[in-house]
Amino acid sequence: MRAVRVLPAGGLEVADVPVPAVGADEVLVKVAGAGLCHSDCMISKVPSVYRSDGQGFTIGHETAGWVEAVGPDVRGLSVGQPVVVHAEFGCGQCPTCVGGHERYCPAIKPAAGAGLGYDGGLAEFLRVPARTVVTLPDGLDPVDAGPLDDAGLTPYHAIRASMPWLGGGSVATVIGIGGLGHLAVQILRAVSPATIVAVEPDPRRREFALELGADLALDPADGAAAQVRALGGSSLVLDLVGVDDTLALAVACAAERGKVVCIGAGLGSTPFGLMRTPWECVLQTSYSGEAWELRELVALAAAGKVRVSASHITLDEVPAAYDRLDRAEQGVGRTIAIP
Amino acid sequence: MRAVRVLPAGGLEVADVPVPAVGADEVLVKVAGAGLCHSDCMISKVPSVYRSDGQGFTIGHETAGWVEAVGPDVRGLSVGQPVVVHAEFGCGQCPTCVGGHERYCPAIKPAAGAGLGYDGGLAEFLRVPARTVVTLPDGLDPVDAGPLDDAGLTPYHAIRASMPWLGGGSVATVIGIGGLGHLAVQILRAVSPATIVAVEPDPRRREFALELGADLALDPADGAAAQVRALGGSSLVLDLVGVDDTLALAVACAAERGKVVCIGAGLGSTPFGLMRTPWECVLQTSYSGEAWELRELVALAAAGKVRVSASHITLDEVPAAYDRLDRAEQGVGRTIAIP
Amino acid sequence: MRAVRVLPAGGLEVADVPVPAVGADEVLVKVAGAGLCHSDCMISKVPSVYRSDGQGFTIGHETAGWVEAVGPDVRGLSVGQPVVVHAEFGCGQCPTCVGGHERYCPAIKPAAGAGLGYDGGLAEFLRVPARTVVTLPDGLDPVDAGPLDDAGLTPYHAIRASMPWLGGGSVATVIGIGGLGHLAVQILRAVSPATIVAVEPDPRRREFALELGADLALDPADGAAAQVRALGGSSLVLDLVGVDDTLALAVACAAERGKVVCIGAGLGSTPFGLMRTPWECVLQTSYSGEAWELRELVALAAAGKVRVSASHITLDEVPAAYDRLDRAEQGVGRTIAIP
Amino acid sequence: MRAVRVLPAGGLEVADVPVPAVGADEVLVKVAGAGLCHSDCMISKVPSVYRSDGQGFTIGHETAGWVEAVGPDVRGLSVGQPVVVHAEFGCGQCPTCVGGHERYCPAIKPAAGAGLGYDGGLAEFLRVPARTVVTLPDGLDPVDAGPLDDAGLTPYHAIRASMPWLGGGSVATVIGIGGLGHLAVQILRAVSPATIVAVEPDPRRREFALELGADLALDPADGAAAQVRALGGSSLVLDLVGVDDTLALAVACAAERGKVVCIGAGLGSTPFGLMRTPWECVLQTSYSGEAWELRELVALAAAGKVRVSASHITLDEVPAAYDRLDRAEQGVGRTIAIP
Repeated sequence: MRAVRVLPAGGLEVADVPVPAVGADEVLVKVAGAGLCHSDCMISKVPSVYRSDGQGFTIGHETAGWVEAVGPDVRGLSVGQPVVVHAEFGCGQCPTCVGGHERYCPAIKPAAGAGLGYDGGLAEFLRVPARTVVTLPDGLDPVDAGPLDDAGLTPYHAIRASMPWLGGGSVATVIGIGGLGHLAVQILRAVSPATIVAVEPDPRRREFALELGADLALDPADGAAAQVRALGGSSLVLDLVGVDDTLALAVACAAERGKVVCIGAGLGSTPFGLMRTPWECVLQTSYSGEAWELRELVALAAAGKVRVSASHITLDEVPAAYDRLDRAEQGVGRTIAIP
Repeated sequence: MRAVRVLPAGGLEVADVPVPAVGADEVLVKVAGAGLCHSDCMISKVPSVYRSDGQGFTIGHETAGWVEAVGPDVRGLSVGQPVVVHAEFGCGQCPTCVGGHERYCPAIKPAAGAGLGYDGGLAEFLRVPARTVVTLPDGLDPVDAGPLDDAGLTPYHAIRASMPWLGGGSVATVIGIGGLGHLAVQILRAVSPATIVAVEPDPRRREFALELGADLALDPADGAAAQVRALGGSSLVLDLVGVDDTLALAVACAAERGKVVCIGAGLGSTPFGLMRTPWECVLQTSYSGEAWELRELVALAAAGKVRVSASHITLDEVPAAYDRLDRAEQGVGRTIAIP
Repeated sequence: MRAVRVLPAGGLEVADVPVPAVGADEVLVKVAGAGLCHSDCMISKVPSVYRSDGQGFTIGHETAGWVEAVGPDVRGLSVGQPVVVHAEFGCGQCPTCVGGHERYCPAIKPAAGAGLGYDGGLAEFLRVPARTVVTLPDGLDPVDAGPLDDAGLTPYHAIRASMPWLGGGSVATVIGIGGLGHLAVQILRAVSPATIVAVEPDPRRREFALELGADLALDPADGAAAQVRALGGSSLVLDLVGVDDTLALAVACAAERGKVVCIGAGLGSTPFGLMRTPWECVLQTSYSGEAWELRELVALAAAGKVRVSASHITLDEVPAAYDRLDRAEQGVGRTIAIP
Repeated sequence: MRAVRVLPAGGLEVADVPVPAVGADEVLVKVAGAGLCHSDCMISKVPSVYRSDGQGFTIGHETAGWVEAVGPDVRGLSVGQPVVVHAEFGCGQCPTCVGGHERYCPAIKPAAGAGLGYDGGLAEFLRVPARTVVTLPDGLDPVDAGPLDDAGLTPYHAIRASMPWLGGGSVATVIGIGGLGHLAVQILRAVSPATIVAVEPDPRRREFALELGADLALDPADGAAAQVRALGGSSLVLDLVGVDDTLALAVACAAERGKVVCIGAGLGSTPFGLMRTPWECVLQTSYSGEAWELRELVALAAAGKVRVSASHITLDEVPAAYDRLDRAEQGVGRTIAIP
């Protein structure tokens, strides 16, 4: 089968590899579509961070498709069912995993899962543990469902954990309206009555945010923090960019007893301390979510409350698409490869 | 001024009484509209439960209007501002009150507040402590805002405290689509992505629930519990009736690890115990909410997400209207008296 | 090996059975000690509730020992390590399991796990999935560690989920000082500053509760509810008996905005409703806990804060010991069988 | 009466001032003892931050004594009762105050309360609103109870809000064993089973921490972070110093999904961001607590679980004592002035 492979020394190639055989509690998924995430650019440059045995692996951690085969110990799944995969899995045996936090599994650090050290979804078929597979209800096409994992799940987890901050009259700010941001706005609209403020320099994306349900779309160069503070401050701020400037903006927007979540992998920072950050405001990073949350998000998508906006390419076009992503030549929404 | 008075031995009369003078930290509200609540029927029959000194009092605990006068120690309020009153107040000094739970103040048991032992809002003017007054934003007419307190606040508090139960794919069931129910449906629609099931015997009210945002409206005689269980069970059930049958229905609808809140004052019961109620399902009663929650609900109303559906009468028509309410000859929505 | 078997039609026998072979992600545990739980009396009478294929199985769901063998996919466990088993496991693949609630797994209803449909721990060896095994730190003898699962885990989960109810000045009431109760008192002492009230008719057990850290030990016949209410009411009540009388007592002790947890399998009930139960008091059933909570409880035991009080018997003495348990001829603490 | 006054331009003097008269809902407290807090050094230098009218005021925000007089609207307090005062009060009328967060009242920013702009407790008498007064149970001497507010309340609030982080096997780290730290260690011991690590450069204070219940006392110069990480990382870190070095140490000690609370007013900072702080670890500042929490802490003190360690001085010795505090020439525990 065709697969987009990370080479052991870094870099990508599209190659032919064998279709994997499933183990006792594994599932083989025939891929309908797999999303391209900006973090893949980093992963493909330093694969040794994700895999210590010097081998390459198939990239792609936003995958949906149909069950093609199941191992003998798999329950409740049958061939042909449409599914989306929770890529960020762990060992499944340690207390962190059993406690419902597989993505932080210490046994397979620094990070692991499909496309994250193990073979991922930018291929014709993907093999994963049965527990990572979430079925798609009728009416939800797997071609565009892959980005519900990661692009959707990451803000969903952060927002789901922040419901006490999102009562009537609250203000939620989303910084960065790219792949994650366009889903974050829709999720906030679906699960909360918050006034939603999108902060984004690209005017096309600001327009897009308003179409998706944002109440305001601000240019960060245009006094965004002051405008948010004029609304009473933001009780939840999601920074989906994560560079120094956006983190500073996030803190400047935040209300006392509010919450700032840093999600974007810009690897910036901002100072935390008394008189630096609003009183009792929570600062927290966040990474992905869990399979049960993905299942909740799938229900939102099935109800038409959240929709992945995507453009489609082939597997062979993937390396060039990652190059554009790495140069920030992104459009609006997510790019999905269809095998 | 005219006022609807509970007589010391029970019963109502419309009488002329003096306009009250405000104390140092009190506010006089010129009443725009005051809602009639079903619980007033009970209150007017046994006033001694609410007032131990043998005196009567003005009834009505759903009041909005305009600030008419303020005491010298009142901050941040000025004459003419539109406001809604949080009627369920306590002593304001004890740990329960200071901890943000005034409605359960043990110092003024069994229950107290405006229209609940102290003079209430079915009058031309109402005097209350400044801390109970919530300002109304532009565009929110005080004539119909009174029922945001109690009729709206009671389900708002119960729903606000239940956000962890209301993720994607959850089912929320509202039993009884009267004064509280028509607001409960709108609040759930505004603050959650839940599938909303309204259960109500009156077909006009079922139709109304669907207009307000319910996804399903079921007749309790028509296998409602089985239909809800077919959806996977309800993770939140609000019983706004509270008789034996509705409580049994509520438990029958509830999911494992779900939540049933009994709000309706039907004074019924249902058995709690292992094998009687779903595993780890919370059963909880609930009464009103607090001023900070009322402020959040006012924000929802100001944003157009929640609207009180009301018919209007005069103060002199109030006693007859309570008679109809007591005989369950209610229409759709809330009855509001305009002085 | 010797094993205490539930017969397909009900009843127990001690028989010789083969030592089980481990699967890829399974562990074989050499049993050091296995506790006898009162619920086993019910399980052994109606095994078909736990197993639908008409087969018998080995009973016992409170097991600790040493790792004897591991399957090829097991991580982080080595032969000889002392461990305790989380018996209440599920399919490990469905959203309920992956979300950290294996004991409520709908795929293997009504209840399952080691000794609960699958072969349990009253035998020389026990085979379980690797994810159910919790290692024991140095100094914690596996002979008496089995009851940390179930007898300890059940109150630990209920108490861990109730920490907001257990601030300074709170009162926690434990009804029934048997196998679970003697651990509940110690757990409350270790994790909270609550005034602990033990309610128990047996004077030896009341004395034992005081030794274990209870502040008061009351006879239910001696106005226990009035005494608890005189302390301000109990913000957390654990009913470890669960018959009508104890549930009524639990509600009578509970404070407004408190919490009553029904754990004991007495299959009684008490009425829930307005004016029947204190305002906003949570009523909730509870069953066992999860492996990550068992690991926390093991840490408490390793720190000397919780100790299982046990008397020891052989496997061949088990059927007679269950007969005594079924007739309520219990002593103080837990009975543990040592193969 | 004698009072320690902050002069309008900064600096302290001990002067004779009139005994204040109480308003309708106020209480006059005869001071038994009032604690000296390190933050007073800053307050006495820049009084205009706390009071905008150019007047001086009496300093001291850790006050206990006996009710000397009550206004006509005060309920539930009688002359002679021992009490401790919650100094950090707000306007009492706005949504922040009514919602139970008086210390963050926006109406009286930047900070206010007794000794914080209003007259405080380093005097013979103190006048405060009735709602700020918490009664002391029998056996709790008001002479040493003042520091329960602030020195005790600040860590109590932070710990009370962190109970989910403090299960069995958790590690709690306290950085700085001064006035707040010696109470933080005792509170953690009383309300949690955590392994308590005290980090403090002064060997006398490390010894003191061990006496108070810490399990380990580390010198920050001695690889403290590495030692805490060797325990698995700290799920809760309280930084009671708040300079750059201690904040960096706090983050270095913290576990994934842990929590760092900055309390100390050292006005330092540390970088927040991905790869800078552990995954999903909460960083949060904290200031004081509320009256209902003070009441819970008083219950801990009355039960003998928390004790203020104090040395006593007279009012006339206060200015010199603040000079020593400002030069960090502190001893062990708190200094309390007795009028």
